[in-house]
Amino acid sequence: MDKKLIGIDLGGTTIKFAILTEKGEIQQKWSFETNILDDGSHIVPDIVQSINHHLSLYGMEPEQFIGIGMGSPGTVDLNEGTVTGAYNLNWKTLQEVKKVVEKETKIAFAIDNDANVAALGERWKGAGENDKEVAFITLGTGVGGGLVSNGNLLHGLGAAGEIGHMVVQPKGYLCTCGNHGCLETYASATGVVRVARDLAEEFAGDSKLKRMLDDGQEITSKIVFDLAKEDDLLGKMVVDRVCYYLGLACGNIGNLLNPSYIVIGGGVSAAGEFLLSRVEKYFLEFAFPTVRKSTQLKLAQLGNEAGVIGAASLALRFK
Amino acid sequence: MDKKLIGIDLGGTTIKFAILTEKGEIQQKWSFETNILDDGSHIVPDIVQSINHHLSLYGMEPEQFIGIGMGSPGTVDLNEGTVTGAYNLNWKTLQEVKKVVEKETKIAFAIDNDANVAALGERWKGAGENDKEVAFITLGTGVGGGLVSNGNLLHGLGAAGEIGHMVVQPKGYLCTCGNHGCLETYASATGVVRVARDLAEEFAGDSKLKRMLDDGQEITSKIVFDLAKEDDLLGKMVVDRVCYYLGLACGNIGNLLNPSYIVIGGGVSAAGEFLLSRVEKYFLEFAFPTVRKSTQLKLAQLGNEAGVIGAASLALRFK
Repeated sequence: MDKKLIGIDLGGTTIKFAILTEKGEIQQKWSFETNILDDGSHIVPDIVQSINHHLSLYGMEPEQFIGIGMGSPGTVDLNEGTVTGAYNLNWKTLQEVKKVVEKETKIAFAIDNDANVAALGERWKGAGENDKEVAFITLGTGVGGGLVSNGNLLHGLGAAGEIGHMVVQPKGYLCTCGNHGCLETYASATGVVRVARDLAEEFAGDSKLKRMLDDGQEITSKIVFDLAKEDDLLGKMVVDRVCYYLGLACGNIGNLLNPSYIVIGGGVSAAGEFLLSRVEKYFLEFAFPTVRKSTQLKLAQLGNEAGVIGAASLALRFK
Repeated sequence: MDKKLIGIDLGGTTIKFAILTEKGEIQQKWSFETNILDDGSHIVPDIVQSINHHLSLYGMEPEQFIGIGMGSPGTVDLNEGTVTGAYNLNWKTLQEVKKVVEKETKIAFAIDNDANVAALGERWKGAGENDKEVAFITLGTGVGGGLVSNGNLLHGLGAAGEIGHMVVQPKGYLCTCGNHGCLETYASATGVVRVARDLAEEFAGDSKLKRMLDDGQEITSKIVFDLAKEDDLLGKMVVDRVCYYLGLACGNIGNLLNPSYIVIGGGVSAAGEFLLSRVEKYFLEFAFPTVRKSTQLKLAQLGNEAGVIGAASLALRFK
């Protein structure tokens, strides 16, 4: 029988698991809530216990697995298999992950950060069509990214792929990172709302979005995009501004890396073709002619499963 | 005896050659003028003849060489070893280079584009300190670049590393590529002069640079930088503007790739630390905190020799 992979997507709310074939087909899936109490000290033991429990449930042995791969928030040391500064897990100090998981499961373990792992997933089984040259942008609470070139993730000295912190507007909005005008401040879910509030101030025409903001109603990026699709004037202005910055970032990613695909995923990308076509308009304005003709923008295809699939692919190195 | 490498730097004015040890030490150097007549049809035969002539001059045989590497202008097909669209060589149609050179010299041949090859040279024996993560920007007539990550050049679909065409100022100066606001329009030798002319128009104070421009004297980027070093007010404004755009580009290269070094070379970089410190000021403003602390800006060290050294390193694959 062919050996299997285990993929783990460690998040601040849930931990997702999957058992996959080495071709990337999901055979089993489960998840549980992340227990971040006591400085997140239960997380690794919970993961180990859950894996061992499910292996015995399915009547499987460690020898039947090529390896385990995991995506984690925070700063990941790829070689040591440790994580630091994952604040949504209450992991403030260095956490030994690889050492513990390998000891307790007897299965080889590899780890990378969550955005990189999602990029690997979309590259392998999603919109990236298993191409060697794929850039991935995820538009969620923040804006993350992962870059694959020559078939490998780019790590640089560890922080490569910080697409959310590309500066797209010098002296623009203040970012949580301390800089101004990062892509994340405009194109994350909260960024879209920020742009909406900002443009509403100087907007004078008729707009439901404007009225909702003035009423103090709670606005989400989904509401902004939905109203824009219904031709709301302010909504359309907000979407245009957001797509302009995304197009500028994609253009410059293209000019530097000329990937086959720039894949856009995450919650905000649920706006679909409405978003993509508008980003593309600006991408075509900012991309170098050769890049414009070769690099293609696409929507992500795997949704939530990108994490476990990409994580599992990390373990292919143990084949 | 250890085997040797041959590096060729093919330019529109001269063709430079070097014989190097496999450690990258230059043992012999020569060059001759590029004959671009008759659609550049003499170039490849001239190269072959020159190599064979020098080998017999030094009493060397093809078997003593690991291979030949060459950097070329135009669009290079790495696998086929062909070049198209190298207009400064009058090469408008596809040129067979690898096939001819290998047949006529009996030495294995590899080729890449000139900016990539210069990046490899600076990475191997220059400011890049043979690190696996190096970005290289060359500020010459245009602005070129090459990106090394995981120890390999990034090619993407062929046009990766177009640093000169990163858009740093949407709706900025019109570029030869047809886009607006490319880095090249501000930070190339001609870009610097363009910024000078532009800022001079609205400049009212006392400045020798302003007087020279008003007199219709010929201005070069060297003159602009020299005057700025002498505290010329307009000169300092021009340098500040150029370094701002370079700092923005370096910041975003850092945010995407987090290399160990971003190496700045080419004619404009002759301004040395005066340029570098000013680019760094803006780089620190635009780089993500982790990147700011880890990625380092440096001046190139090899000058004109980066081309032949980097070209020779292409041939190391035949070892």
